[in-house]
Amino acid sequence: MADIPTAAISRLVTYLRILEQLETQDVSRTSSNDLAERAQVSAFQVRKDLAYFGRFGTRGMGYTVPILKRELVRVLGLNRTWSVVIVGMGRLGQAIANYPGASDYRFQYVGLFDVNPQIVGQQIRDLRVQHTEQLRDFVSATPVDMGFLAVPPDRAQDAAQALVDAGVRGILNFAPVVIQPRTTERGGVSEPGEEWRNVTIENVDFLAGMKRLAFYILNPTLKAALTEDTE
Amino acid sequence: MADIPTAAISRLVTYLRILEQLETQDVSRTSSNDLAERAQVSAFQVRKDLAYFGRFGTRGMGYTVPILKRELVRVLGLNRTWSVVIVGMGRLGQAIANYPGASDYRFQYVGLFDVNPQIVGQQIRDLRVQHTEQLRDFVSATPVDMGFLAVPPDRAQDAAQALVDAGVRGILNFAPVVIQPRTTERGGVSEPGEEWRNVTIENVDFLAGMKRLAFYILNPTLKAALTEDTE
Repeated sequence: MADIPTAAISRLVTYLRILEQLETQDVSRTSSNDLAERAQVSAFQVRKDLAYFGRFGTRGMGYTVPILKRELVRVLGLNRTWSVVIVGMGRLGQAIANYPGASDYRFQYVGLFDVNPQIVGQQIRDLRVQHTEQLRDFVSATPVDMGFLAVPPDRAQDAAQALVDAGVRGILNFAPVVIQPRTTERGGVSEPGEEWRNVTIENVDFLAGMKRLAFYILNPTLKAALTEDTE
Repeated sequence: MADIPTAAISRLVTYLRILEQLETQDVSRTSSNDLAERAQVSAFQVRKDLAYFGRFGTRGMGYTVPILKRELVRVLGLNRTWSVVIVGMGRLGQAIANYPGASDYRFQYVGLFDVNPQIVGQQIRDLRVQHTEQLRDFVSATPVDMGFLAVPPDRAQDAAQALVDAGVRGILNFAPVVIQPRTTERGGVSEPGEEWRNVTIENVDFLAGMKRLAFYILNPTLKAALTEDTE
């Protein structure tokens, strides 16, 4: 699986979302054409993306919705439980903790952190918000798979470093900044610190969506052209 | 500009975010290699994405940060003001309204809507939250470029239809569902209603980020391989 583009993984997530909606509508079969139209990509793209991971359909018969859904859940690793801490429990962190559907996927919030004394100590979803200073001790004592960063932009870098120092290997960053690994000098060359080895950062950016939307409002034919590109 | 992949637009947004951060760090020059490394794509990809829109650098000299930033702002249409309404002013809608940085981009909130009587009438960012029933009248009287949907999943479809009926042509959907245009029958064929012509929907999905992160935590070498693919 060495050559799978990141965009293909994003599209798998979109296909899974579409399959879930088809299931709630009691639709039991779909096709690459149907998925393509709903995802606004080409049918060729759908088949290529799925082919990275196996053969899920029957030639000329399309896909069985619950089977393809189950397979994508497995490919994405969503058939296991993920222990998550949220750093930053302002409006955004609270919106995340209460986002509908996260619990469907066994994302389990095990710790909530903030630096604001008015928020520390509050009870949110059966958890007492802890001070971010306690993050390292907490992660030493509790297995944590992912950290969600919902802090203001100017605190994101330090909060990310605190998560990585504490041993968390996956970060979902909601702040509108690009997290950079702390670099260390070795033989005159600066390189990411050892603690950043195998750390994955994914960005969720409200502004990114707004910016894409601005572009497509100004260029509506681009989107339309893609929708029609379904062979 | 008929053949620009949607993924290229997403990457432009990422490059812009990186350029903004370089600017705050007083870095005045960058290169396709540098941008590529920070965006976790190949340098070839960076050059190809930028080439859709013009020639922004000097061969062998790289890019001037403020100039490339200004050009991407222009390409994305972020040098003009966008009037925005938010439908759904629970935790998520409030987090959006207060998201840092949106005001940098002349996204201007002109109306906030909810159905919850405890939220309607509240004052948020100098606006009084109105009942969603008033959306159509409001949009008739006030130019609105975009609607942000922050309603629960089971209300997203109706809220999107209300926005489109009211004449809004761009929707940023934060609910974890795929919005489907209301179809009408014409000559035995069901097709999207006329009101959906040139409507653009962009999805921002918290869960999508969580799912991608799960995949990359399980497959860390995939991400590493991409980072190294910088020629």
